[in-house]
Formats: sequence, C-alpha cells, structure tokens
Amino acid sequence: MAKRSYPLSKVYGLLEPGPVVLLTTADCGSANIMTLSWLTMMEFEPPLVGCIIGERNHSFGLLMASRECAINIPTVELAERVVACGNCTGANTDKFAKFGFTPKPAAQIAVPLVAECFAQLECRVTDTGMVERYGLFVLEVVKAWIDPAVNNPRTIHHRGRGAFMVAGETIKLKSKMK
Amino acid sequence: MAKRSYPLSKVYGLLEPGPVVLLTTADCGSANIMTLSWLTMMEFEPPLVGCIIGERNHSFGLLMASRECAINIPTVELAERVVACGNCTGANTDKFAKFGFTPKPAAQIAVPLVAECFAQLECRVTDTGMVERYGLFVLEVVKAWIDPAVNNPRTIHHRGRGAFMVAGETIKLKSKMK
Repeated sequence: MAKRSYPLSKVYGLLEPGPVVLLTTADCGSANIMTLSWLTMMEFEPPLVGCIIGERNHSFGLLMASRECAINIPTVELAERVVACGNCTGANTDKFAKFGFTPKPAAQIAVPLVAECFAQLECRVTDTGMVERYGLFVLEVVKAWIDPAVNNPRTIHHRGRGAFMVAGETIKLKSKMK
Repeated sequence: MAKRSYPLSKVYGLLEPGPVVLLTTADCGSANIMTLSWLTMMEFEPPLVGCIIGERNHSFGLLMASRECAINIPTVELAERVVACGNCTGANTDKFAKFGFTPKPAAQIAVPLVAECFAQLECRVTDTGMVERYGLFVLEVVKAWIDPAVNNPRTIHHRGRGAFMVAGETIKLKSKMK
C-alpha cells in the first residue's frame, strides 16, 4: 500500500496511544530493527519524542553514530514478527531479511522504513544529553507517512512477559485537549 | 474495592501499554488532578517514569513544591470524568469534588490517590534537570496498588481531539522480553 505524507502536527495522535513500535536504525550500510515501547511525546510541533534505548542494544551504537532513526508502527497482523525482532539481537542477524520485513527508502534520512507498518516517522536525534544517565534520546520527527486506508489501527501494546493488548474500539468524547 | 499492594518489579506492565492516567499532586492542603498521557517507563526497578508536564499546568507548581505525585490509572467507565479533568484547570477548581473522585490517603506520600482507579502508583520526583527545557520530570515509583479483581483493564488511550482507543483483547506471544 502506498503511503501518504502525514502532517507533523498530527503525529502525537499516532504515538500517544502507546503502541509497540519498530525502531529502525542504520549506519554504513548495516540496518537494524528494534522492538520498543519505552517512548513518549515531548512536544507537539515540531514533534519531539523521547525514547529509551539501553546501551546494550545493537541499535544504540547505530543511533549514536548516525543520529537518525525511524519509528515504524505495526498492527496486530505483524505481532509475531514484532516479538521475534525483540527476541534476538541485530549484532549477528539481519532482521529485515530474517523476519521478512521490506526495507523502504526514507525521504529525509538514510535509514530504511519498514514498509509493512501502517505509519512511519522519520526522526533525527536532537539531544543526547540524557543518554548516558537514562538512555534517553530526544528525537525530532522530520517526516511522517501513513497508510490512508487504516483508520482505526489495531496496534499492539506491551503488558509484559508475552502479553499484548490489542487496540479495541475508538470512542469520542468532548475533549478540549489537542 | 480494596486495593492490594503490587510488586514494584511489575509496574512497567501497567504503564507500557500507554494508558491515559490521572496524575494527582498536592501541596499545603491543596490537591489537584491532571489528565496526562505523555509519559514513559525509563527503568524497570526501581521503576522510573519520565513524565512531561508543561509549566502552564496548575499541577506543575504543586509537583515542583512537594516533589511527590501519584499516577492513577482509570478504565473506560471513568472516561467522561477523565476528559472533564483535562478540560479545566485546578487553579480555580477542586477537581476531586467537582468530578466526584474520592481522595484516598497514600502510604508513602502526602498526595491523595484516586480511589476509583484500578491502579495507583505513589511517586517521588528524583530528577528535575530536564524540567526547564522539556518539562520532563523523572519519577521513582515507591509504592504501587492494584485492584486484584481487574485482570484485563479496559484502559483508555488518547488519539487526539476527543478520540480515545479503548483497550481490547489480550494476546499471548512467545516473548523473551520482560
């Protein structure tokens, strides 16, 4: 499915629900995929995302070197492969090849997107001041893509030890919040 | 429903799915409730939580002064009141009274918990170094409570502009992740 460019001002609505994401990184031709759910919005626009990545992760080195990454948001159809990505390290595995994910060139960064995900956020690292203490990277989303056919994405949400909540119905309430 | 003490080592499983939470604060006898979904786990144990609170929020001053807060996790039955809490400021409103939430004394902090929520996390602020730049408070969860009757909490997840995703089914996968 061809993705459509998505307004940066609406990115918060993709991440606030708290989905498990696939973080892609690359450096010198070596790309990786990391399963992640420790992230939060930090600013609406330009969208800033705080994301915790421990230094033992293979993605840590790639991200520190290239200062770029993509946040790809999967839906439940990909759940088994998303978990498989989290069960192994990219140090000795090409996860794109092993789990059948399609690397797709990004527009503004030299990191492949995961074509199978319904939304993709191209990011640059803007602050590494909290990396040493907390593994916290501040990312700015510089370009966003979405599959326009997906309205109520059945994202997956990590409850721990193999349990994932799958996004259910959407309700509308009279909110003044963005 | 009487709450049961919940192991700190399992707190991540409550917050990783990304629910909207009610943050309670208090200082000098004045308590407040803030609706929030910009937060992330930062460490498993002791559990650290990063939470973004802008200085324009009434809760900001209370939190800076007392250095304590509670993260209360509501389910969908409370959705209308949760949104109502987000639609007004505590500067001139007692939100506990106005929205019919029951303040319940905490064990380790001088901030009331929201009795109606199925889980409550008592927190102390451990790092304000990123508050000025990002509004990011680092919180340590020092005590956790849960309603033992709730197994698959129907939490709500903010999609923006009045739309909330309600937690759906739980699936189990073969994950090596915590």
